[in-house]
Amino acid sequence: MIEFWYEFASTYSYPAAMRIERLADEAGVAIAWRPFLLGPLFHEQQGLRDSPFNVVPVKGKYMWRDLERVCEEEGLPLVHPSQFPRNALLAARVAIVGLEDGWTPAFSKKVYEANFVADQDISSPEVLAPLVEEVGAAPEAVFAAAQGADVKARLKDHVEQAKARGVFGSPSFITADGELFWGNDRLEQALDWAQRHATREHA
Amino acid sequence: MIEFWYEFASTYSYPAAMRIERLADEAGVAIAWRPFLLGPLFHEQQGLRDSPFNVVPVKGKYMWRDLERVCEEEGLPLVHPSQFPRNALLAARVAIVGLEDGWTPAFSKKVYEANFVADQDISSPEVLAPLVEEVGAAPEAVFAAAQGADVKARLKDHVEQAKARGVFGSPSFITADGELFWGNDRLEQALDWAQRHATREHA
Repeated sequence: MIEFWYEFASTYSYPAAMRIERLADEAGVAIAWRPFLLGPLFHEQQGLRDSPFNVVPVKGKYMWRDLERVCEEEGLPLVHPSQFPRNALLAARVAIVGLEDGWTPAFSKKVYEANFVADQDISSPEVLAPLVEEVGAAPEAVFAAAQGADVKARLKDHVEQAKARGVFGSPSFITADGELFWGNDRLEQALDWAQRHATREHA
Repeated sequence: MIEFWYEFASTYSYPAAMRIERLADEAGVAIAWRPFLLGPLFHEQQGLRDSPFNVVPVKGKYMWRDLERVCEEEGLPLVHPSQFPRNALLAARVAIVGLEDGWTPAFSKKVYEANFVADQDISSPEVLAPLVEEVGAAPEAVFAAAQGADVKARLKDHVEQAKARGVFGSPSFITADGELFWGNDRLEQALDWAQRHATREHA
Protein backbone atom coordinates (compact mmCIF):
# COMPACT_ATOMS: atom_id res chain seq x y z
CA MET A 1 0.00 0.00 0.00
CA ILE A 2 1.09 3.56 -0.56
CA GLU A 3 -0.51 6.76 0.62
CA PHE A 4 -0.91 9.35 -2.10
CA TRP A 5 -0.87 12.84 -0.52
CA TYR A 6 -2.12 15.48 -2.93
CA GLU A 7 -3.27 19.10 -3.07
CA PHE A 8 -5.60 20.14 -5.89
CA ALA A 9 -3.76 23.38 -6.67
CA SER A 10 -0.45 21.57 -7.15
CA THR A 11 0.78 21.36 -10.73
CA TYR A 12 2.88 18.19 -10.62
CA SER A 13 0.09 16.45 -8.69
CA TYR A 14 -2.01 16.57 -11.87
CA PRO A 15 0.13 14.08 -13.86
CA ALA A 16 0.65 12.06 -10.67
CA ALA A 17 -3.11 11.70 -10.14
CA MET A 18 -3.63 10.69 -13.77
CA ARG A 19 -0.82 8.10 -13.70
CA ILE A 20 -1.00 6.56 -10.27
CA GLU A 21 -3.85 4.06 -10.72
CA ARG A 22 -2.34 2.43 -13.81
CA LEU A 23 1.14 2.23 -12.33
CA ALA A 24 -0.04 1.04 -8.92
CA ASP A 25 -2.17 -1.60 -10.58
CA GLU A 26 0.82 -2.83 -12.60
CA ALA A 27 2.89 -2.94 -9.41
CA GLY A 28 0.15 -4.70 -7.45
CA VAL A 29 0.18 -1.93 -4.85
CA ALA A 30 -2.99 -0.45 -3.31
CA ILE A 31 -3.40 3.34 -3.10
CA ALA A 32 -4.79 5.28 -0.14
CA TRP A 33 -5.87 8.67 -1.50
CA ARG A 34 -5.01 11.42 0.98
CA PRO A 35 -6.26 14.87 -0.07
CA PHE A 36 -4.68 17.64 1.99
CA LEU A 37 -3.88 21.35 1.86
CA LEU A 38 -0.38 22.55 1.15
CA GLY A 39 -0.93 26.21 2.07
CA PRO A 40 -0.68 25.73 5.85
CA LEU A 41 2.52 23.70 5.41
CA PHE A 42 4.10 26.23 3.03
CA HIS A 43 3.34 28.94 5.56
CA GLU A 44 4.50 27.11 8.65
CA GLN A 45 7.60 25.44 7.16
CA GLN A 46 8.78 28.09 4.71
CA GLY A 47 7.02 31.30 5.75
CA LEU A 48 5.30 31.44 2.36
CA ARG A 49 1.87 32.93 1.70
CA ASP A 50 1.89 32.05 -2.02
CA SER A 51 3.17 29.21 -4.20
CA PRO A 52 6.99 29.03 -4.30
CA PHE A 53 6.56 29.06 -8.08
CA ASN A 54 5.10 32.56 -7.81
CA VAL A 55 7.47 33.75 -5.10
CA VAL A 56 10.55 32.71 -7.14
CA PRO A 57 9.69 33.51 -10.78
CA VAL A 58 12.73 31.74 -12.27
CA LYS A 59 11.56 28.51 -10.65
CA GLY A 60 8.01 29.13 -11.81
CA LYS A 61 9.08 29.65 -15.40
CA TYR A 62 11.05 26.41 -15.32
CA MET A 63 8.23 24.49 -13.66
CA TRP A 64 5.65 25.42 -16.31
CA ARG A 65 8.01 24.37 -19.12
CA ASP A 66 8.97 21.17 -17.33
CA LEU A 67 5.30 20.39 -16.66
CA GLU A 68 4.58 20.84 -20.39
CA ARG A 69 7.28 18.30 -21.22
CA VAL A 70 6.06 15.87 -18.54
CA CYS A 71 2.45 16.08 -19.72
CA GLU A 72 3.46 15.78 -23.38
CA GLU A 73 5.43 12.63 -22.63
CA GLU A 74 2.43 11.18 -20.80
CA GLY A 75 -0.04 12.22 -23.51
CA LEU A 76 -1.87 14.46 -21.03
CA PRO A 77 -3.43 17.74 -22.18
CA LEU A 78 -2.33 20.84 -20.29
CA VAL A 79 -3.64 24.40 -20.28
CA HIS A 80 -1.74 26.94 -18.21
CA PRO A 81 -4.42 28.02 -15.69
CA SER A 82 -5.36 31.68 -15.83
CA GLN A 83 -5.22 31.69 -12.03
CA PHE A 84 -2.51 29.96 -10.00
CA PRO A 85 -2.67 28.62 -7.41
CA ARG A 86 -6.41 28.13 -7.07
CA ASN A 87 -8.08 27.74 -3.69
CA ALA A 88 -8.57 24.01 -3.17
CA LEU A 89 -10.33 24.03 0.20
CA LEU A 90 -13.82 23.06 -0.99
CA ALA A 91 -12.52 20.48 -3.47
CA ALA A 92 -10.40 18.88 -0.75
CA ARG A 93 -13.37 18.70 1.62
CA VAL A 94 -15.51 17.13 -1.11
CA ALA A 95 -12.73 14.62 -1.78
CA ILE A 96 -12.79 13.69 1.92
CA VAL A 97 -16.55 13.09 1.69
CA GLY A 98 -16.03 10.63 -1.15
CA LEU A 99 -13.48 8.41 0.57
CA GLU A 100 -15.98 6.04 2.18
CA ASP A 101 -18.03 5.57 -0.96
CA GLY A 102 -14.97 5.17 -3.14
CA TRP A 103 -15.52 8.00 -5.62
CA THR A 104 -12.61 10.16 -4.43
CA PRO A 105 -10.12 8.94 -7.09
CA ALA A 106 -12.50 9.59 -10.00
CA PHE A 107 -13.58 12.94 -8.56
CA SER A 108 -9.99 14.00 -7.88
CA LYS A 109 -8.92 13.34 -11.46
CA LYS A 110 -11.87 15.43 -12.66
CA VAL A 111 -10.84 18.30 -10.38
CA TYR A 112 -7.30 18.23 -11.79
CA GLU A 113 -8.70 18.28 -15.32
CA ALA A 114 -10.97 21.20 -14.41
CA ASN A 115 -7.98 23.14 -13.03
CA PHE A 116 -5.26 22.23 -15.53
CA VAL A 117 -7.14 21.45 -18.73
CA ALA A 118 -10.51 23.27 -18.65
CA ASP A 119 -9.02 26.23 -16.73
CA GLN A 120 -12.00 26.33 -14.37
CA ASP A 121 -12.21 27.84 -10.90
CA ILE A 122 -12.15 24.74 -8.68
CA SER A 123 -13.05 26.81 -5.62
CA SER A 124 -16.54 27.31 -7.06
CA PRO A 125 -19.43 24.98 -6.10
CA GLU A 126 -20.85 25.56 -9.61
CA VAL A 127 -17.71 24.07 -11.12
CA LEU A 128 -17.53 21.16 -8.67
CA ALA A 129 -21.24 20.17 -8.67
CA PRO A 130 -21.23 18.58 -12.15
CA LEU A 131 -18.04 16.69 -11.28
CA VAL A 132 -19.72 15.26 -8.18
CA GLU A 133 -22.70 14.23 -10.31
CA GLU A 134 -20.44 12.61 -12.89
CA VAL A 135 -19.00 10.28 -10.28
CA GLY A 136 -22.50 9.26 -9.23
CA ALA A 137 -22.95 11.29 -6.06
CA ALA A 138 -25.58 13.90 -5.14
CA PRO A 139 -24.06 17.41 -5.07
CA GLU A 140 -26.48 18.84 -2.52
CA ALA A 141 -25.87 16.14 0.07
CA VAL A 142 -22.14 16.09 -0.68
CA PHE A 143 -21.73 19.86 -0.24
CA ALA A 144 -23.73 19.74 2.98
CA ALA A 145 -21.42 17.04 4.31
CA ALA A 146 -18.35 18.90 3.00
CA GLN A 147 -19.27 21.92 5.13
CA GLY A 148 -19.97 19.82 8.23
CA ALA A 149 -17.76 19.84 11.29
CA ASP A 150 -16.77 16.21 10.84
CA VAL A 151 -15.33 16.65 7.34
CA LYS A 152 -13.64 19.93 8.26
CA ALA A 153 -11.96 18.16 11.17
CA ARG A 154 -10.91 15.24 8.99
CA LEU A 155 -9.25 17.53 6.45
CA LYS A 156 -7.45 19.38 9.23
CA ASP A 157 -6.33 16.02 10.55
CA HIS A 158 -4.94 15.15 7.09
CA VAL A 159 -2.92 18.36 7.11
CA GLU A 160 -1.60 17.58 10.60
CA GLN A 161 -0.79 14.00 9.62
CA ALA A 162 1.08 15.22 6.51
CA LYS A 163 3.10 17.62 8.61
CA ALA A 164 3.90 14.97 11.19
CA ARG A 165 5.08 12.59 8.46
CA GLY A 166 7.54 15.12 7.00
CA VAL A 167 5.48 16.15 3.97
CA PHE A 168 6.35 19.59 2.53
CA GLY A 169 5.14 19.34 -1.06
CA SER A 170 2.66 17.67 -3.35
CA PRO A 171 2.45 15.01 -4.63
CA SER A 172 4.00 12.97 -1.84
CA PHE A 173 3.94 9.22 -1.48
CA ILE A 174 4.42 7.37 1.80
CA THR A 175 4.95 3.64 1.96
CA ALA A 176 3.71 1.31 4.71
CA ASP A 177 7.18 1.29 6.25
CA GLY A 178 7.23 5.11 6.39
CA GLU A 179 9.41 6.04 3.40
CA LEU A 180 8.53 9.44 1.98
CA PHE A 181 8.87 10.18 -1.72
CA TRP A 182 8.21 13.67 -3.08
CA GLY A 183 7.25 14.54 -6.61
CA ASN A 184 5.54 13.05 -9.64
CA ASP A 185 8.97 11.89 -10.79
CA ARG A 186 9.31 9.71 -7.68
CA LEU A 187 6.05 7.79 -8.20
CA GLU A 188 7.68 4.79 -9.90
CA GLN A 189 10.36 4.63 -7.21
CA ALA A 190 7.76 4.81 -4.42
CA LEU A 191 5.76 1.96 -5.95
CA ASP A 192 8.91 -0.07 -6.45
CA TRP A 193 9.82 0.50 -2.79
CA ALA A 194 6.30 -0.49 -1.68
CA GLN A 195 6.52 -3.67 -3.75
CA ARG A 196 9.93 -4.66 -2.39
CA HIS A 197 9.00 -3.92 1.22
CA ALA A 198 5.51 -5.40 1.18
CA THR A 199 6.24 -8.24 3.60
CA ARG A 200 4.83 -6.36 6.59
CA GLU A 201 1.45 -6.04 4.97
CA HIS A 202 1.26 -9.75 4.32
CA ALA A 203 2.84 -10.83 7.60
CA MET B 1 25.75 18.21 -27.01
CA ILE B 2 24.50 19.10 -23.56
CA GLU B 3 25.93 21.57 -21.10
CA PHE B 4 26.29 20.19 -17.59
CA TRP B 5 26.07 23.06 -15.09
CA TYR B 6 27.25 22.03 -11.65
CA GLU B 7 28.24 23.43 -8.27
CA PHE B 8 30.61 21.40 -6.08
CA ALA B 9 28.65 21.95 -2.86
CA SER B 10 25.44 20.62 -4.39
CA THR B 11 24.32 17.23 -3.14
CA TYR B 12 22.38 15.91 -6.13
CA SER B 13 25.20 17.06 -8.43
CA TYR B 14 27.37 14.32 -6.96
CA PRO B 15 25.41 11.39 -8.46
CA ALA B 16 24.88 13.44 -11.63
CA ALA B 17 28.64 13.94 -12.08
CA MET B 18 29.31 10.25 -11.49
CA ARG B 19 26.60 9.11 -13.94
CA ILE B 20 26.75 11.61 -16.77
CA GLU B 21 29.71 10.28 -18.77
CA ARG B 22 28.38 6.73 -19.01
CA LEU B 23 24.86 7.86 -19.89
CA ALA B 24 25.99 10.52 -22.36
CA ASP B 25 28.28 8.00 -24.01
CA GLU B 26 25.41 5.53 -24.37
CA ALA B 27 23.26 8.29 -25.87
CA GLY B 28 26.01 9.47 -28.20
CA VAL B 29 25.77 12.99 -26.74
CA ALA B 30 28.84 15.13 -25.94
CA ILE B 31 29.06 16.91 -22.58
CA ALA B 32 30.29 20.46 -22.01
CA TRP B 33 31.26 20.67 -18.32
CA ARG B 34 30.20 24.02 -16.87
CA PRO B 35 31.34 24.55 -13.26
CA PHE B 36 29.57 27.51 -11.65
CA LEU B 37 28.62 28.86 -8.23
CA LEU B 38 25.08 28.57 -6.95
CA GLY B 39 25.44 30.94 -3.98
CA PRO B 40 25.11 34.17 -5.99
CA LEU B 41 22.02 32.79 -7.74
CA PHE B 42 20.39 31.61 -4.51
CA HIS B 43 20.96 35.04 -3.06
CA GLU B 44 19.80 37.06 -6.05
CA GLN B 45 16.83 34.87 -7.04
CA GLN B 46 15.59 33.69 -3.66
CA GLY B 47 17.16 36.02 -1.12
CA LEU B 48 18.97 33.07 0.47
CA ARG B 49 22.36 33.23 2.18
CA ASP B 50 22.48 29.50 2.91
CA SER B 51 21.41 26.28 1.21
CA PRO B 52 17.61 25.95 1.00
CA PHE B 53 18.13 22.53 2.59
CA ASN B 54 19.43 24.29 5.72
CA VAL B 55 16.92 27.15 5.58
CA VAL B 56 13.96 24.73 5.40
CA PRO B 57 14.88 21.79 7.67
CA VAL B 58 11.97 19.57 6.59
CA LYS B 59 13.25 19.76 3.00
CA GLY B 60 16.80 19.12 4.14
CA LYS B 61 15.80 16.04 6.10
CA TYR B 62 13.98 14.68 3.06
CA MET B 63 16.85 15.51 0.70
CA TRP B 64 19.45 13.58 2.72
CA ARG B 65 17.23 10.51 2.88
CA ASP B 66 16.36 10.79 -0.81
CA LEU B 67 20.04 11.19 -1.70
CA GLU B 68 20.84 8.03 0.28
CA ARG B 69 18.28 6.12 -1.77
CA VAL B 70 19.53 7.60 -5.06
CA CYS B 71 23.16 6.76 -4.27
CA GLU B 72 22.27 3.28 -3.06
CA GLU B 73 20.42 2.59 -6.29
CA GLU B 74 23.44 3.77 -8.29
CA GLY B 75 25.93 1.85 -6.16
CA LEU B 76 27.58 5.11 -5.09
CA PRO B 77 29.04 5.48 -1.60
CA LEU B 78 27.75 8.44 0.42
CA VAL B 79 28.88 9.95 3.69
CA HIS B 80 26.82 12.81 5.10
CA PRO B 81 29.39 15.66 5.11
CA SER B 82 30.15 17.10 8.53
CA GLN B 83 29.90 20.57 6.95
CA PHE B 84 27.20 21.56 4.46
CA PRO B 85 27.35 23.38 2.17
CA ARG B 86 31.11 23.65 1.70
CA ASN B 87 32.68 26.64 -0.01
CA ALA B 88 33.32 25.60 -3.59
CA LEU B 89 34.97 28.77 -4.92
CA LEU B 90 38.54 27.44 -5.21
CA ALA B 91 37.45 24.05 -6.57
CA ALA B 92 35.30 25.78 -9.21
CA ARG B 93 38.21 28.00 -10.28
CA VAL B 94 40.50 24.97 -10.52
CA ALA B 95 37.86 23.19 -12.61
CA ILE B 96 37.83 26.18 -14.98
CA VAL B 97 41.63 25.89 -15.33
CA GLY B 98 41.32 22.27 -16.41
CA LEU B 99 38.80 22.82 -19.21
CA GLU B 100 41.35 23.41 -21.96
CA ASP B 101 43.52 20.44 -21.03
CA GLY B 102 40.54 18.17 -20.57
CA TRP B 103 41.04 17.10 -16.96
CA THR B 104 38.00 18.94 -15.57
CA PRO B 105 35.66 15.89 -15.65
CA ALA B 106 38.11 13.63 -13.79
CA PHE B 107 38.98 16.38 -11.32
CA SER B 108 35.33 17.25 -10.73
CA LYS B 109 34.40 13.68 -9.87
CA LYS B 110 37.30 13.58 -7.40
CA VAL B 111 36.06 16.78 -5.75
CA TYR B 112 32.57 15.31 -5.33
CA GLU B 113 34.06 12.18 -3.79
CA ALA B 114 36.18 14.32 -1.45
CA ASN B 115 33.07 16.24 -0.34
CA PHE B 116 30.46 13.47 -0.20
CA VAL B 117 32.48 10.32 0.47
CA ALA B 118 35.75 11.30 2.19
CA ASP B 119 34.08 14.21 4.06
CA GLN B 120 36.98 16.54 3.25
CA ASP B 121 37.00 20.31 3.18
CA ILE B 122 37.02 21.05 -0.55
CA SER B 123 37.74 24.74 0.09
CA SER B 124 41.26 23.78 1.25
CA PRO B 125 44.20 23.83 -1.21
CA GLU B 126 45.71 20.96 0.81
CA VAL B 127 42.68 18.83 -0.01
CA LEU B 128 42.55 19.85 -3.67
CA ALA B 129 46.30 19.60 -4.48
CA PRO B 130 46.48 15.78 -4.49
CA LEU B 131 43.34 15.65 -6.65
CA VAL B 132 44.99 17.95 -9.18
CA GLU B 133 48.05 15.73 -9.17
CA GLU B 134 45.97 12.61 -9.62
CA VAL B 135 44.55 13.95 -12.87
CA GLY B 136 48.07 14.65 -14.15
CA ALA B 137 48.32 18.40 -13.59
CA ALA B 138 50.80 20.42 -11.51
CA PRO B 139 49.13 21.88 -8.40
CA GLU B 140 51.41 24.90 -8.06
CA ALA B 141 50.83 26.10 -11.61
CA VAL B 142 47.15 25.23 -11.45
CA PHE B 143 46.54 27.17 -8.20
CA ALA B 144 48.46 30.15 -9.60
CA ALA B 145 46.22 30.12 -12.69
CA ALA B 146 43.13 29.58 -10.53
CA GLN B 147 43.84 32.81 -8.62
CA GLY B 148 44.53 34.77 -11.81
CA ALA B 149 42.24 37.47 -13.12
CA ASP B 150 41.41 35.52 -16.26
CA VAL B 151 40.07 32.45 -14.45
CA LYS B 152 38.22 34.57 -11.89
CA ALA B 153 36.54 36.40 -14.76
CA ARG B 154 35.68 33.17 -16.55
CA LEU B 155 33.99 31.73 -13.46
CA LYS B 156 32.03 34.95 -12.98
CA ASP B 157 31.02 34.69 -16.61
CA HIS B 158 29.79 31.13 -16.02
CA VAL B 159 27.63 32.38 -13.15
CA GLU B 160 26.23 35.17 -15.36
CA GLN B 161 25.61 32.75 -18.22
CA ALA B 162 23.81 30.35 -15.89
CA LYS B 163 21.61 33.17 -14.61
CA ALA B 164 20.85 34.38 -18.13
CA ARG B 165 19.86 30.86 -19.20
CA GLY B 166 17.35 30.47 -16.36
CA VAL B 167 19.43 28.22 -14.11
CA PHE B 168 18.45 28.31 -10.41
CA GLY B 169 19.79 25.00 -9.12
CA SER B 170 22.41 22.31 -9.62
CA PRO B 171 22.78 20.08 -11.49
CA SER B 172 21.23 21.70 -14.55
CA PHE B 173 21.45 20.47 -18.11
CA ILE B 174 20.95 22.67 -21.16
CA THR B 175 20.58 21.25 -24.64
CA ALA B 176 21.85 22.86 -27.85
CA ASP B 177 18.33 24.10 -28.60
CA GLY B 178 18.11 25.79 -25.21
CA GLU B 179 15.99 23.36 -23.19
CA LEU B 180 16.75 23.52 -19.48
CA PHE B 181 16.48 20.44 -17.28
CA TRP B 182 17.03 20.67 -13.52
CA GLY B 183 18.06 17.86 -11.23
CA ASN B 184 19.93 14.57 -11.28
CA ASP B 185 16.60 12.89 -11.95
CA ARG B 186 16.25 14.81 -15.25
CA LEU B 187 19.60 13.68 -16.68
CA GLU B 188 18.16 10.83 -18.74
CA GLN B 189 15.41 13.09 -20.09
CA ALA B 190 17.91 15.81 -21.02
CA LEU B 191 20.08 13.33 -22.91
CA ASP B 192 17.03 11.91 -24.64
CA TRP B 193 15.99 15.43 -25.66
CA ALA B 194 19.51 16.18 -26.94
CA GLN B 195 19.48 12.98 -28.98
CA ARG B 196 16.08 13.65 -30.53
CA HIS B 197 16.87 17.29 -31.32
CA ALA B 198 20.43 16.80 -32.55
CA THR B 199 19.74 17.85 -36.15
CA ARG B 200 20.97 21.39 -35.59
CA GLU B 201 24.37 20.20 -34.53
CA HIS B 202 24.74 18.09 -37.67
CA ALA B 203 23.08 20.56 -40.04
